Amino acid sequence: MTYCVAIKVNEGLVFAGDTRTSAGVDDVRTYNKLHVFEFPGERVFVLLSAGNLATTQAVLANINRDLNNPAATTSLRNVMHMYDAAEYLGALSVRSQRETAANMQPSSVDLRATLILGGQIKGEEPSLYLIYPEGNCISSSPDTPYLQIGELKYGKPILDRIIRPYVSLEDGARCALVSMDSTMKSNLSVGPPIDLVIVPTGALKVTRRMRLDFDTPMFAQIREGWGRELVRAFRNLPRFDWEVQQEMTFQQAASQQQTQS
Amino acid sequence: MTYCVAIKVNEGLVFAGDTRTSAGVDDVRTYNKLHVFEFPGERVFVLLSAGNLATTQAVLANINRDLNNPAATTSLRNVMHMYDAAEYLGALSVRSQRETAANMQPSSVDLRATLILGGQIKGEEPSLYLIYPEGNCISSSPDTPYLQIGELKYGKPILDRIIRPYVSLEDGARCALVSMDSTMKSNLSVGPPIDLVIVPTGALKVTRRMRLDFDTPMFAQIREGWGRELVRAFRNLPRFDWEVQQEMTFQQAASQQQTQS
Repeated sequence: MTYCVAIKVNEGLVFAGDTRTSAGVDDVRTYNKLHVFEFPGERVFVLLSAGNLATTQAVLANINRDLNNPAATTSLRNVMHMYDAAEYLGALSVRSQRETAANMQPSSVDLRATLILGGQIKGEEPSLYLIYPEGNCISSSPDTPYLQIGELKYGKPILDRIIRPYVSLEDGARCALVSMDSTMKSNLSVGPPIDLVIVPTGALKVTRRMRLDFDTPMFAQIREGWGRELVRAFRNLPRFDWEVQQEMTFQQAASQQQTQS
Repeated sequence: MTYCVAIKVNEGLVFAGDTRTSAGVDDVRTYNKLHVFEFPGERVFVLLSAGNLATTQAVLANINRDLNNPAATTSLRNVMHMYDAAEYLGALSVRSQRETAANMQPSSVDLRATLILGGQIKGEEPSLYLIYPEGNCISSSPDTPYLQIGELKYGKPILDRIIRPYVSLEDGARCALVSMDSTMKSNLSVGPPIDLVIVPTGALKVTRRMRLDFDTPMFAQIREGWGRELVRAFRNLPRFDWEVQQEMTFQQAASQQQTQS
């Protein structure tokens, strides 16, 4: 499996993805699931992928094929709007699935891939789209300022608590890393290293790009810090009535003992 | 859906379950998913259920039928070991599914139910079993001191971080409530009130039983406290290099301005 998350705040976009690919637990590999298509000053796209790796790679190959073909009617270089880019990727994904299915004997192989496309085209606001295997898509919104694909449930609670449109890009990135860390702690199919990319509003390029492994100092500090802070947060939770009463009884007994001695 | 969790620590057992049942989002009801069978001083069982409600209710009805039948060869009153009790419930579940399936036209109705059985029989250690729809079961272990059924992914990370065999019963109960709260925040199919039960080792009875709604003071305090503490924990995470550098630049600029003014 996979876990990828993209966050849209007022300051811009944050993308994070793991790199573990598995065809069964005995066939685990590291693959980049975060891909950047950058035309600095003009437009920038970041693609996150989950699902069938061959479908994803076919989409990527066709994106690049169209970019290298000056006669291509549609490519990431010439789409007018971000929504057009999302529709274009949806069409590439559906085409790849359909072509493979036509060559396939009836089987249980799941050819579906789910994509997140984010970025900005000059003159437009930055935006995020989740592209379904069926080729249609939904965008993020101020009320839902993040999109996830893959093993998304473990890392959702912290996003729900922290991510708001006014949050800084850096807090968005930290929250993405915490969400990744929680997922990796609870699900072996999601694994390091983590790719992290930041695209500030109006920059029209990627300004920060990191690959973070467990021993990368920043990620190690966030993981260690979060584990410690969570335990501290837990220790500060209110006590049940009977715990408070027990503590009072202990204290009374202790003070009586003192008086007696 | 459902979310139930059972925790086994050295001090005893903690059980928590939500009460939301849904057959589609337009058919949502409140049902007890936590059931206690108590023979104080002799044996105590707590049952948590997820999945098909009719299957679960058939299991419960048959448990009670056997308890009320002095001639029953197997019942919760006469099973020798906790494992026998788990096998007995598995058999009741399979029987109910099989009988209903025999009466059913081919359909997509999912008759499966997954159960957690925990408790203690005098002379044995307390134990926890997860009973699969197929009737077989697994127990918890010191390395995996909790079992979950239903929508388990949202609330798993906090359990993985906090629950260890040496944790107190009250910390186990608090962690179960936090795990429930995170799940309810991120998934509408899991809803209040929450049933919480504590069975200390050797007590051979339920010593604490609570039904907690959002406006129950203890649960409201835990939810509010956890939200606040999580944000504080997040604020204490380390900064990225460039944030530290930016802050230093700001401070230098500020101190230079002071010198000049």
